[in-house]
Amino acid sequence: MNTTSQLALVGANVCPIESLDYEHREAFLAYAGCNLILATAAAALCAYIAPAAAGSGIPEVKAYLNGIDAPSILAPSTLFVKIFGSICGVSAGFVLGKEGPMVHTGACIANFLGQGGSRRWRSALLWRTFFTTAVVAVTLRAFGEYCRSGKCGLFGEGGLIMFDISSTATSYSTPDLIAVVFLGAIGGIFGSLYNFLVDKVLHTYSIINEKGAPFKILLTVTISLLTSCCSYGLPWLAKCTPCPLGLHEHCPTLGRSGNFKKFQCPQGHYNDLASLFLNTSGDAIRILFSSGTDNEFYISTLFVFFAAIYFLGIVTYGIAVPSGLFIPVILAGASYGRLVGSLLGTICGLDKGLFALLGAASFLGGTMRMTVSVCVILLELTNDLPMLPLVMLVLLISKTVADGFNRGVYDQMVIMKGLPYMEAHAEPYMRNLVAGDVVSGPLITFSGVEKVANIMHALNVTGHNGFPVVDEPPFSDAPELCGLVLRSHLLVLLKGKTFTKDRVLTGPAEVYRRFGAFDFAKAGSGKGLKFEDLDIDEEDMEMYVDLHPVTNRSPYTVVETMSLAKAAVLFRELGLRHLCVVPKTPGRPPIIGILTRHDFMPEHILGLFPQFNHQN
Amino acid sequence: MNTTSQLALVGANVCPIESLDYEHREAFLAYAGCNLILATAAAALCAYIAPAAAGSGIPEVKAYLNGIDAPSILAPSTLFVKIFGSICGVSAGFVLGKEGPMVHTGACIANFLGQGGSRRWRSALLWRTFFTTAVVAVTLRAFGEYCRSGKCGLFGEGGLIMFDISSTATSYSTPDLIAVVFLGAIGGIFGSLYNFLVDKVLHTYSIINEKGAPFKILLTVTISLLTSCCSYGLPWLAKCTPCPLGLHEHCPTLGRSGNFKKFQCPQGHYNDLASLFLNTSGDAIRILFSSGTDNEFYISTLFVFFAAIYFLGIVTYGIAVPSGLFIPVILAGASYGRLVGSLLGTICGLDKGLFALLGAASFLGGTMRMTVSVCVILLELTNDLPMLPLVMLVLLISKTVADGFNRGVYDQMVIMKGLPYMEAHAEPYMRNLVAGDVVSGPLITFSGVEKVANIMHALNVTGHNGFPVVDEPPFSDAPELCGLVLRSHLLVLLKGKTFTKDRVLTGPAEVYRRFGAFDFAKAGSGKGLKFEDLDIDEEDMEMYVDLHPVTNRSPYTVVETMSLAKAAVLFRELGLRHLCVVPKTPGRPPIIGILTRHDFMPEHILGLFPQFNHQN
Repeated sequence: MNTTSQLALVGANVCPIESLDYEHREAFLAYAGCNLILATAAAALCAYIAPAAAGSGIPEVKAYLNGIDAPSILAPSTLFVKIFGSICGVSAGFVLGKEGPMVHTGACIANFLGQGGSRRWRSALLWRTFFTTAVVAVTLRAFGEYCRSGKCGLFGEGGLIMFDISSTATSYSTPDLIAVVFLGAIGGIFGSLYNFLVDKVLHTYSIINEKGAPFKILLTVTISLLTSCCSYGLPWLAKCTPCPLGLHEHCPTLGRSGNFKKFQCPQGHYNDLASLFLNTSGDAIRILFSSGTDNEFYISTLFVFFAAIYFLGIVTYGIAVPSGLFIPVILAGASYGRLVGSLLGTICGLDKGLFALLGAASFLGGTMRMTVSVCVILLELTNDLPMLPLVMLVLLISKTVADGFNRGVYDQMVIMKGLPYMEAHAEPYMRNLVAGDVVSGPLITFSGVEKVANIMHALNVTGHNGFPVVDEPPFSDAPELCGLVLRSHLLVLLKGKTFTKDRVLTGPAEVYRRFGAFDFAKAGSGKGLKFEDLDIDEEDMEMYVDLHPVTNRSPYTVVETMSLAKAAVLFRELGLRHLCVVPKTPGRPPIIGILTRHDFMPEHILGLFPQFNHQN
Repeated sequence: MNTTSQLALVGANVCPIESLDYEHREAFLAYAGCNLILATAAAALCAYIAPAAAGSGIPEVKAYLNGIDAPSILAPSTLFVKIFGSICGVSAGFVLGKEGPMVHTGACIANFLGQGGSRRWRSALLWRTFFTTAVVAVTLRAFGEYCRSGKCGLFGEGGLIMFDISSTATSYSTPDLIAVVFLGAIGGIFGSLYNFLVDKVLHTYSIINEKGAPFKILLTVTISLLTSCCSYGLPWLAKCTPCPLGLHEHCPTLGRSGNFKKFQCPQGHYNDLASLFLNTSGDAIRILFSSGTDNEFYISTLFVFFAAIYFLGIVTYGIAVPSGLFIPVILAGASYGRLVGSLLGTICGLDKGLFALLGAASFLGGTMRMTVSVCVILLELTNDLPMLPLVMLVLLISKTVADGFNRGVYDQMVIMKGLPYMEAHAEPYMRNLVAGDVVSGPLITFSGVEKVANIMHALNVTGHNGFPVVDEPPFSDAPELCGLVLRSHLLVLLKGKTFTKDRVLTGPAEVYRRFGAFDFAKAGSGKGLKFEDLDIDEEDMEMYVDLHPVTNRSPYTVVETMSLAKAAVLFRELGLRHLCVVPKTPGRPPIIGILTRHDFMPEHILGLFPQFNHQN
């Protein structure tokens, strides 16, 4: 007797077991097989074409907006895999979302269209973001209107408001408020536990994933089978419920989606757990959020669903598939909220659908820790403005509770990926250090008119992206800092071979004649010139090149005795990539070093000054 | 025959003119008299106690968050007058809002509670703002619940959503979209015209107001009489309309507020213009926004109301009364929108209430130019999420159109008030200048250990708030910039008299012994030490004081050759008050000058370099 039929016995089943057993085994094989094929396709795309497309993408976009231009984050290959991998991943029935990948996809497209533009986040972008959103909303709306009559298949079904629960009653009492505070606090603990477990799982997975593409696929396949078993197996634990009377919709559900899946139940009955598992995640959330359905779910059903989704959500994130976190967290939170609401029963007069919404808010607050955005997202999803104060309250409580345990899930991932994210505030120990303390050498500087061989050597042996240019006699009275020259600009200049035999100023006219404005622009596709593209012969090596025309004459500088905390704020607020540290006293070389993002990272500083470790 | 009875003849009046004439003259006198008394009270409060409380207060708060701590903006007297002046002003029937004054009131209270804290806007405040809002929303809600049963008078009537129009139909067609685009564009023109006229009126009024408090009161009285005449006189122009059948509410309206004011009409009729004029502005907006009331207003009524409110709104702002702009602009915009909707008639299928909402959005976009905030405010006021795309579209169009003509109304006022507001971006001509170009002298520096007499002299003859401290031999090998000392800290130090007879370092220990941490903190009430509070005798004058303990050793610096545009970005992004300009070449004094906010103002720079004027 296999597991499936054991499960079948547990369920209050009235069909003959023999035929059912066979029928359901076939159904399960078809279900799990389809999932497996789709999962393998998604994993193969990710593993072989664009490993950067795995996961949510929000940590990467967040890092990009912080000023970290990591390779291949926004490359066209990532875009391709993100789109198709996400489609396969969602279709494969994984407990994952498409919202994060959507954000990443949008960022990739924007990067592709806006070749070479810098996109560090600053408040001036808010208005443009708003503009884009308005255009999208109106366009989407227009398509929706056009498609309403069924011209475009499923597109256009369902409006812009996904889970409309605006009909919920709007009054609540003091016991309700206490219940909501309690819900938020527990939700915060669950949320931070989620982050903790996701982090542990990601560390374990990274060991497996590092072994190569086949291992990535194998891991994905395992999780796919686990998910299929849960989705198909667990509903057998649920009892069949007679359909309620006086419904507007069909019961059991006909066709694709609906609140009342028949599953193994006899006619006129439905399986409430199957209604949650064997639906799209969007429909499952809609069912959980729906109001006036207080008795539709057994407490045991909600408990099983919550436990399964919480667990599956944690083990799914990290497989080689584009996978968002919003949907798993909302699903787990909504079932948690509805469960709490059902447990409280009549003590609390609030609708169970509202409890589900608040549960989702508490989980979102506990994992993501974004208050304002989550609040707006929930408002837009549910169109439930009168409940906004409660949602805000729950978010604040859960965020505050969770902040006591660990960091937000995206911050955790940014750290785990080793992205040098700069926080808005300086760390406390930075106040005890000065800029000169963390400068790490050796510093390579160029003269205003430099020998080609020296430049070639520097570009070859270092990976520096910026080099200070120092003017020396006869071009100035004493050595002085002329500015900063970028590796990419040096490469373009060397490629153009505007060399002179003697150490003389050529001036900008020559450079303007040879190069167009776009020659020095940043290549959007990440396909800029490389050192290997240069073609410099022995003769060229002995010649000179005037660096003044490509030097940034106004680099931001700090004195070596500047508080490191203040230097960090300067670096972050201005979105710098290089910060020149200059000496305080005269009579020394005009530049001491260059601070980059990495020099402000805790690992670097605490490595140099281990005594601050215990303060942290 | 007086004006009132002439107007009475114009109206389709059926009562005997004689008795009506007398009755209405008495009513008008009572109405105008009450308004006049309240207006005079508001103006007297403003003129004699806190002139800074006049107007909206949003430009001042905006400037404060930009880093401008102008005197008395957030003083307790301003708070007092803002609250009571606003109550009198709104009750006096002026066409003005209470939203701006509310914002200012909140800022005053926060400043009072958070004595000495710095409140420059930075993104780290967003989360705290959200927290505050959540607490307010939940508290307000609780009071609302408690008061619903009528325990607190009018408080608690009406929910948090002021103008609920969520029932409006949600579909629109292409002709509708074209109508909306047209509405937005014209609304943008009206909005920018509003700004232009408000600016002109403010300039005129400032001439009157400068003559003294009695003139301020006289001006307010004039506008009050004008407003009373319009509100009471113009409804006589409207025809009486028979009450529609099958209404839920009384017609004509009984009591305080309602859609159907009887005014001079016979029983069973109402005066639509009186319903708009003789209501609170909130109710008038609610009536205009209400859906399913397409035939409630004559086109002529809407036109008269729009023209009157547009005109009264412009002439009211600038009188010595706390007066917000939101309500007048929304009122004018809503009547404009409804007017356009009525003119389009059956060409456009949209509800006239929705037209009113979009008209209000277009006016707000055209005057304030804030897109995201206005959008959120309108959403919260109306709870009409499905119409969000249309509102966004209208806002964008009107803002874009209006930006072609002039600045936003608040920006205009900031400029008119002479507040040195720093824009987020640098002006184009700044790229052609370097930091050293705009340094204006003479520079006063102190030695690390300075003679008391020198400090006293500098504090007395200059108004500088920061002084560079330069270490000289024997305290350093060569003159070098030690840091920056603030006027307020110098005053505390001098008041404490930690002087020495000789030029020696006393070190920080002595200062820490004498002073507590709060002695140097910024006084929240603006009542810090003044130069006049010092009590230094002849003997003290010849002594020395060690400035090192109170010197900021890490001031932000730029080299004199730094691009002025980059220096401006640095200054603004870091929220600086002083930026030290240091020399590029050695062998010169270690500091060239200090840049303050005023040095970045266009007036200052274009005064020094008139050749850039035409580029601007």
